[in-house]
Amino acid sequence: MMNSALPDAGDLSAPYRAAYRDHAVLITGGLGFIGSNLARALVQAGARVTLVDSLIPEYGGNVFNVADIQDQVRINISDVRDPFSIEHLLRGQDVLFNLAGQTSHLDSMNDPRKDLDINATAQLSILEACRKVNPDIKVVFASTRQLYGKPDYLPVDEAHPLRPADVNGINKLAGECYHMLYHQVYGLRTCALRLTNTYGPGMRVVDARQTFLGIWMRLLVEGKPIRVFGDGRQLRDFNYVDDCVAALLLAGCQEVANGRVYNLGAPDVIALGDLATQLVATAGQGAVEYVSFPAERKAIDIGDYYGDFSRIRNELGWQPGVLLAQGLRRTLDYYREHHRHYWPAAT
Amino acid sequence: MMNSALPDAGDLSAPYRAAYRDHAVLITGGLGFIGSNLARALVQAGARVTLVDSLIPEYGGNVFNVADIQDQVRINISDVRDPFSIEHLLRGQDVLFNLAGQTSHLDSMNDPRKDLDINATAQLSILEACRKVNPDIKVVFASTRQLYGKPDYLPVDEAHPLRPADVNGINKLAGECYHMLYHQVYGLRTCALRLTNTYGPGMRVVDARQTFLGIWMRLLVEGKPIRVFGDGRQLRDFNYVDDCVAALLLAGCQEVANGRVYNLGAPDVIALGDLATQLVATAGQGAVEYVSFPAERKAIDIGDYYGDFSRIRNELGWQPGVLLAQGLRRTLDYYREHHRHYWPAAT
Repeated sequence: MMNSALPDAGDLSAPYRAAYRDHAVLITGGLGFIGSNLARALVQAGARVTLVDSLIPEYGGNVFNVADIQDQVRINISDVRDPFSIEHLLRGQDVLFNLAGQTSHLDSMNDPRKDLDINATAQLSILEACRKVNPDIKVVFASTRQLYGKPDYLPVDEAHPLRPADVNGINKLAGECYHMLYHQVYGLRTCALRLTNTYGPGMRVVDARQTFLGIWMRLLVEGKPIRVFGDGRQLRDFNYVDDCVAALLLAGCQEVANGRVYNLGAPDVIALGDLATQLVATAGQGAVEYVSFPAERKAIDIGDYYGDFSRIRNELGWQPGVLLAQGLRRTLDYYREHHRHYWPAAT
Repeated sequence: MMNSALPDAGDLSAPYRAAYRDHAVLITGGLGFIGSNLARALVQAGARVTLVDSLIPEYGGNVFNVADIQDQVRINISDVRDPFSIEHLLRGQDVLFNLAGQTSHLDSMNDPRKDLDINATAQLSILEACRKVNPDIKVVFASTRQLYGKPDYLPVDEAHPLRPADVNGINKLAGECYHMLYHQVYGLRTCALRLTNTYGPGMRVVDARQTFLGIWMRLLVEGKPIRVFGDGRQLRDFNYVDDCVAALLLAGCQEVANGRVYNLGAPDVIALGDLATQLVATAGQGAVEYVSFPAERKAIDIGDYYGDFSRIRNELGWQPGVLLAQGLRRTLDYYREHHRHYWPAAT
């Protein structure tokens, strides 16, 4: 089955064929948003790809995300909290893209223990398993700008203090620290990318658990108004998923990345209200509604954020290539065509 | 039973009587080194003191530590990983001194999961319990200089980057972050003291799990040589336990501390080799042996460390009062008298 509305990932994989062809690659969270797009690029680069995903309904995994490549990858449904399955799957792998995580800030406050189990405890057991059964593996960890909390200055570089503003940020911080430590102490070839808002085909759109842009996309396609919290002047940066995948691929094949953390980011910083307006204009339908900040979200809001991505540009040669207008258009087109695979039809 | 060799804690408690008299105070890790000294001061200040301790043999709990006050405190043996006992014990308390922890850096590398369970997971459940059953409680968390890892500059202030050099440091970082977050989001009156090397009567001396000074003290009393790793030029700062207790008491009764982290520290910074020499001179027996760094310790060593404690001096009015020479003498006297309660007699 071909998924014609998917972005042309052929372009993406070309520069990485030499690095990944015939390499064994494991992706945790492989049926999720970023994992599935990464899997597609790796398949096209000639890698042997195994995807592990828990398919927990509240998270990002969706088998439709890999419908077009399902015969070219190995899919293993299990949970990163299950150390036995992960240890088995790690054997013989050349590269681990460690993307599985609980992403909802609000859920992390309501069920902090589950967030801890997935984002910290499971990460430690993955690294212990690497050390034990596959110490030569290359590991790329998907970290997050959430580690910084409310910025002291903008753009935020990697030297910015780490002061997470929610339970999710604290547990992701622990997860990232374990990765760095296992490089430092055991020589494991780990690195971490601190992702900012990533968007594109395959993201969770049924609700705001993965990104608020997800629920916005759904509301737009349904012709309903987008809700912006507060005055909509909070600044954010966005990466289209292909750019994020390129960063992962670059990190996964360069030794200079070992033991390093890198911000992602984008040159086109935008206020959330303006983004909403742009989305409505792109869609040619829908509307923007300003509502007051729900108390439980305001308590963990980080204000303005955008990142300085000069380190990854200088050290790994990455820079984002897809403009926001272009990326939003592709994403909207995708969900207009495939929405039935991402949320239930209205009854 | 009176424990005559104990330092005169009466001096300690006097300034805090107004703040703690008739107050209900819970101390996790209450049979441990710092917890038991704190308990003594609180009893003398007129507080109603409950001690909770797991008495796990590898940790710091020792019933002899509270032999002289055992009839004036409530002792509850349970583990902070048991959320039900902790939730029950938290009800009706005015202040929680949250000192329970796994302290061994080496053990945290060999059994990272257990360190995580105690230093991070249990902390989260303690805070959840506070929020649920006692949201007005004041909480003082015993954090650690280990959060900083290998210093970028000296003395290390609270703005220094957090880059823990072992699993223990990462999990303690998560534990501290949870405390700060629960203040930020839920208004819980939490603060954290980043302790440096603390020493004195009651510390674990059977091995180096709590502090290397512990095993040094034992070897001295046994008339055996002290082993210094490397060239002995690593700088460290030390707080005598009474000073540490004073800092805890000050933090526990001042609202200005809420949401704040504070370094402890001391003006008399010393190289470990010199400290060993001074100890041998104080004891009038023993010797110093220089041995090469064991690989597993070298991998997580942080080099020189000493802290800038001007924040707690300026905000809470704390400063250390016991000189190193004085504190070492008192500690040595204590273990000479009471060693049979801290390690098995030679056979």
